[in-house]
Amino acid sequence: MDLTSISGPSFLKSLDNEQLKDLSEDIRSFLIEKLSVTGGHIGPNLGVVELTVALHKAFNSPDDKFLWDVGHQAYVHKILTGRADQFDTLRQFKGLCGFPKMIESEHDVWEAGHSSTSLSAAMGMAKARDIQKKKNYVIPIIGDGALTGGMALEALNHIGHEKTDMIVILNDNEMSIAPNVGALHNVLGKLRTHGTYNKAKDEIESLLKKIPAVGGKLAGTAERLKDTMKYLLVSGAFFEELGFTYLGPIDGHSFEDLEENLKNAKKMKGPVLIHVITKKGKGFKPAEQDKIGTWHGTGPYKMETGDFVKSSSKAPSWSALVAETARKLARDDRRIVAITPAMPVGSKLEGFASEFPDRMFDVGIAEQHATTMAAGMAAEGMKPLLVIYSTFLQRAYDQVLHDICRQNLNVVIGIDRAGLVGADGETHQGVFDISFLRHMPNMVIMMPKDENEGQHMVKTAFDYSDGPIALRYPRGNGLGVMMDEELNPIPIGTWEVLKEGSQAVILTFGTTISMALQAADELSKLNISVEVVNARFIKPLDEEMLKDIQKRNIPIITVEESALQGGFGSAVLEFYNEQNLQANVKRIGIPDIFIEHGEVNQLLQEINITTESIVELVKTSVNESPRYISL
Amino acid sequence: MDLTSISGPSFLKSLDNEQLKDLSEDIRSFLIEKLSVTGGHIGPNLGVVELTVALHKAFNSPDDKFLWDVGHQAYVHKILTGRADQFDTLRQFKGLCGFPKMIESEHDVWEAGHSSTSLSAAMGMAKARDIQKKKNYVIPIIGDGALTGGMALEALNHIGHEKTDMIVILNDNEMSIAPNVGALHNVLGKLRTHGTYNKAKDEIESLLKKIPAVGGKLAGTAERLKDTMKYLLVSGAFFEELGFTYLGPIDGHSFEDLEENLKNAKKMKGPVLIHVITKKGKGFKPAEQDKIGTWHGTGPYKMETGDFVKSSSKAPSWSALVAETARKLARDDRRIVAITPAMPVGSKLEGFASEFPDRMFDVGIAEQHATTMAAGMAAEGMKPLLVIYSTFLQRAYDQVLHDICRQNLNVVIGIDRAGLVGADGETHQGVFDISFLRHMPNMVIMMPKDENEGQHMVKTAFDYSDGPIALRYPRGNGLGVMMDEELNPIPIGTWEVLKEGSQAVILTFGTTISMALQAADELSKLNISVEVVNARFIKPLDEEMLKDIQKRNIPIITVEESALQGGFGSAVLEFYNEQNLQANVKRIGIPDIFIEHGEVNQLLQEINITTESIVELVKTSVNESPRYISL
Repeated sequence: MDLTSISGPSFLKSLDNEQLKDLSEDIRSFLIEKLSVTGGHIGPNLGVVELTVALHKAFNSPDDKFLWDVGHQAYVHKILTGRADQFDTLRQFKGLCGFPKMIESEHDVWEAGHSSTSLSAAMGMAKARDIQKKKNYVIPIIGDGALTGGMALEALNHIGHEKTDMIVILNDNEMSIAPNVGALHNVLGKLRTHGTYNKAKDEIESLLKKIPAVGGKLAGTAERLKDTMKYLLVSGAFFEELGFTYLGPIDGHSFEDLEENLKNAKKMKGPVLIHVITKKGKGFKPAEQDKIGTWHGTGPYKMETGDFVKSSSKAPSWSALVAETARKLARDDRRIVAITPAMPVGSKLEGFASEFPDRMFDVGIAEQHATTMAAGMAAEGMKPLLVIYSTFLQRAYDQVLHDICRQNLNVVIGIDRAGLVGADGETHQGVFDISFLRHMPNMVIMMPKDENEGQHMVKTAFDYSDGPIALRYPRGNGLGVMMDEELNPIPIGTWEVLKEGSQAVILTFGTTISMALQAADELSKLNISVEVVNARFIKPLDEEMLKDIQKRNIPIITVEESALQGGFGSAVLEFYNEQNLQANVKRIGIPDIFIEHGEVNQLLQEINITTESIVELVKTSVNESPRYISL
Repeated sequence: MDLTSISGPSFLKSLDNEQLKDLSEDIRSFLIEKLSVTGGHIGPNLGVVELTVALHKAFNSPDDKFLWDVGHQAYVHKILTGRADQFDTLRQFKGLCGFPKMIESEHDVWEAGHSSTSLSAAMGMAKARDIQKKKNYVIPIIGDGALTGGMALEALNHIGHEKTDMIVILNDNEMSIAPNVGALHNVLGKLRTHGTYNKAKDEIESLLKKIPAVGGKLAGTAERLKDTMKYLLVSGAFFEELGFTYLGPIDGHSFEDLEENLKNAKKMKGPVLIHVITKKGKGFKPAEQDKIGTWHGTGPYKMETGDFVKSSSKAPSWSALVAETARKLARDDRRIVAITPAMPVGSKLEGFASEFPDRMFDVGIAEQHATTMAAGMAAEGMKPLLVIYSTFLQRAYDQVLHDICRQNLNVVIGIDRAGLVGADGETHQGVFDISFLRHMPNMVIMMPKDENEGQHMVKTAFDYSDGPIALRYPRGNGLGVMMDEELNPIPIGTWEVLKEGSQAVILTFGTTISMALQAADELSKLNISVEVVNARFIKPLDEEMLKDIQKRNIPIITVEESALQGGFGSAVLEFYNEQNLQANVKRIGIPDIFIEHGEVNQLLQEINITTESIVELVKTSVNESPRYISL
């Protein structure tokens, strides 16, 4: 059928299973074709086609509330709620968001991006429903990977205790972003492989009924037996222990199984967990065969072959640069270990893992545990490299502060995807880490200008032995610069003048350096001489250089691809203020709003972090300078 | 025995159980007497006397690593490691810390204060041990309350999966800080009440052996039966499911039981969990009889009667003021609900709970879940009051940012214990919340000058409907001011001039207002006229007032009991910078270090947040002003 003709999910009610299957095939073809152009989370969405269709048939959205955990698997939901016609703009500036978005549709009742929030939010919605005496269903859909996140476990615990009415869909696709980790996964694995489990249960039950002693001379035991029977008769003991009614495991691609179990769940009181087995990437060979997560989220690809449309950059990715440099150093320093919360592929730690399998720890989606585990290792003399995306490091704020910084432990934090990340949008922009790390005592924060400086900074980080040190680096590839053979540490808190100039100074770091240099070039054509400084240490600042610059009494422009509130520019303001020095500082950075999805360059344009705005600001500042006379 | 003669735990090796019992009685008397003067965490420590003695006898600290989760139950450990003579200074400035502290003793190998970190840290230490090919034991001691914290569950999951050698002591005292919440507690409860469990296991096992079918015609079933036998034969199914060997439950006050189980655990491979039942407050009647957590941590008390030495303040506590005002408003507004992560008593929500049992949610130690659950309720039109201590809100940084602020939901965050808290020290000071909330878009932050303004601010918060709003308030009692009958909202972002003046302006809020007023008084005696402003909104600032003040070209002094980095003073710097306005701002606040324990006034003295330092700074500033001439 023409999917763009769908205006809402109500049409599903009248379709039979054959029609639903046809529809599912249409949706698959649609997704495979559309995403080959735009890129997107193809694997997760192909896995939940039948599940999403069955859910929208069984329930009445938006009265009934679907909460898509993480949210990147909501494409089918978007199609069924009337947004198929917008898929050409998926994840593009002002286009369809890759995650649920309240402003797009009344069917998007909860937004996510980070993992493991759906159960807590569902608990809130269910309690609100009960207080308001409404009757709707609340249905969080959570993957087996997201279930290992601490807050999901906190929520399971609370929901099971309160016996709140709710239907949790456990979307068990055997692989979340990376192959799953953790004991919980083993439990799920056992359930998954017991295709004959229901049969076995029946057999055991009838077996037990034949025991003559029950109810007879062992009356006391019988009572206890009733308690323990639960373990015997219920395959989902783990969830049952927590207070859930467990249904499954069922085939998430069978409309018959889905319909039957959803129907049963709707009749039950208290929390129900339906364990649904799905196949990530189903219906698209290259994605189905993926074992490590390559097809979780992708850029454009060739539909016929599954070949990716390669980026033209020959430079190493930032992730690879950091991971591979750490790997090199780890050969001579047995204290170096690497820890990732479920991002071994994204963080390019596969090489490190294969060379040092005993010194590499993928702890699953568990940023808090990863961070404090790193602290524990450092307390015992190891040199852990904890690699976390900037946006996910937010989840471990307290662990960085309370466990690492307070105990001043030597943990190297690799902050991947720092700055704007583009297509993933608001939930994923790495724009707060400077503001949330800068006020932590003992913390060192740095960001390199290019991959060569990047490799020296990795060395710097592992050589540093006075406490925690964070190395930020952006999403994407390096600049393709020449790489030094020998690695040399950079003195902590030292900046570098990249271009000398006499009328203004630009202080910047990382991705915005090229912008600043270009601005300086354009300004030189206007006979304005501007200095550009690589402010590679965000904490501590290069205080000597700042003092020298202040003495020159010329405008100082700070440029950062990071939140202005509490950011690098503020650090400069604070420093001059502390020192009781007057300086004419102007700050460029990210304003006090959430930044939506789109190409990074478009986003930077939108918020005025551009070469042009630097040129303009320098021009204005130079003309108004000096703003004050020290008395 | 004379406990102050203990220099280390090695003497325990030669003591028999009778001697250990005598020692335990001595330790109890010592704690009850010492803490009656200093106050402290009496309940938790009386509960772990035998356990701690047994652990130090069974293991060799510091080679073997004890990790005390939360850390407030480490007093006995401190006594056994040679610190009894310092208990007169417990929790006092420069005295013995109430939590493990590495600088105090080599036996303190991990510091805590926040809950649920011990398992992750233990995993780090165990992995470090294995890589370094050492042989020591790693022994985290965690309470049943702390076990519900998400990061502890993340760690259990990872440890069980990796089968890492470790002996986890689950200190199950039936009540952590407040009565436990959550399904996990029910599981523990079941185990706890099955005193005859081992016997039952034996009976069931022999019963099953008699089934003729096993091994016979039901061979396939027998194999599966072996799998499911586990549920039947092991009482700790939950932990066994996760990959732990479960021992217990055992009596945590019986040296025989402790010795036997610790001995067994030491011989086992992989992670072992010993479930130890202890009685909080054991040996001190008033504490033993405590049902709600009053004796968890206390001030001084009378040993004979258990009466508390009451504070002389007649004013309501800040916690009570906020909770009771919310309760009053909740009578007319059914959308108002309250959520606390395990602090119903500390946050004084008992009254709210008894009046609105269906609208009050104690979710256990689970700050992340509490926060996102609040977001879920707000998404459905409720008005949740989420009360969390400032220091524990750190645990929910991402949930506040990603779930509440990003979706701009109407959650009222009551930030209790904001500012310095005193005796609990570094891990508990509430000095970072302004710095970590201020850069979150959509957030409003306010702090009242006194409890009358406080009640109006509670009204303000619930009336506000444009997104999240945080109300900070300090530990302790209000000032005893007259309370208005009628509650009126305060316009968002408006400050108040408390005292007019012409030569300088002090901008401050909350607890430091009295300091500023006193400074202004003293300065007036020196004929220096100073204005004092109640900057009750930290975000948004009162921009009109700031502009007016700037026009007067006089020094502006910001004073805050909060981190300077990214704090309120920085917000003022940022504002003038943004507006391109020159202003002579000086900032007083908490420097870039962790602040230890001690009385708040001593701590403020130590870091120069005093009336005197304000007076001095104003004097200097007035004399040097104007620092610049606008051109």
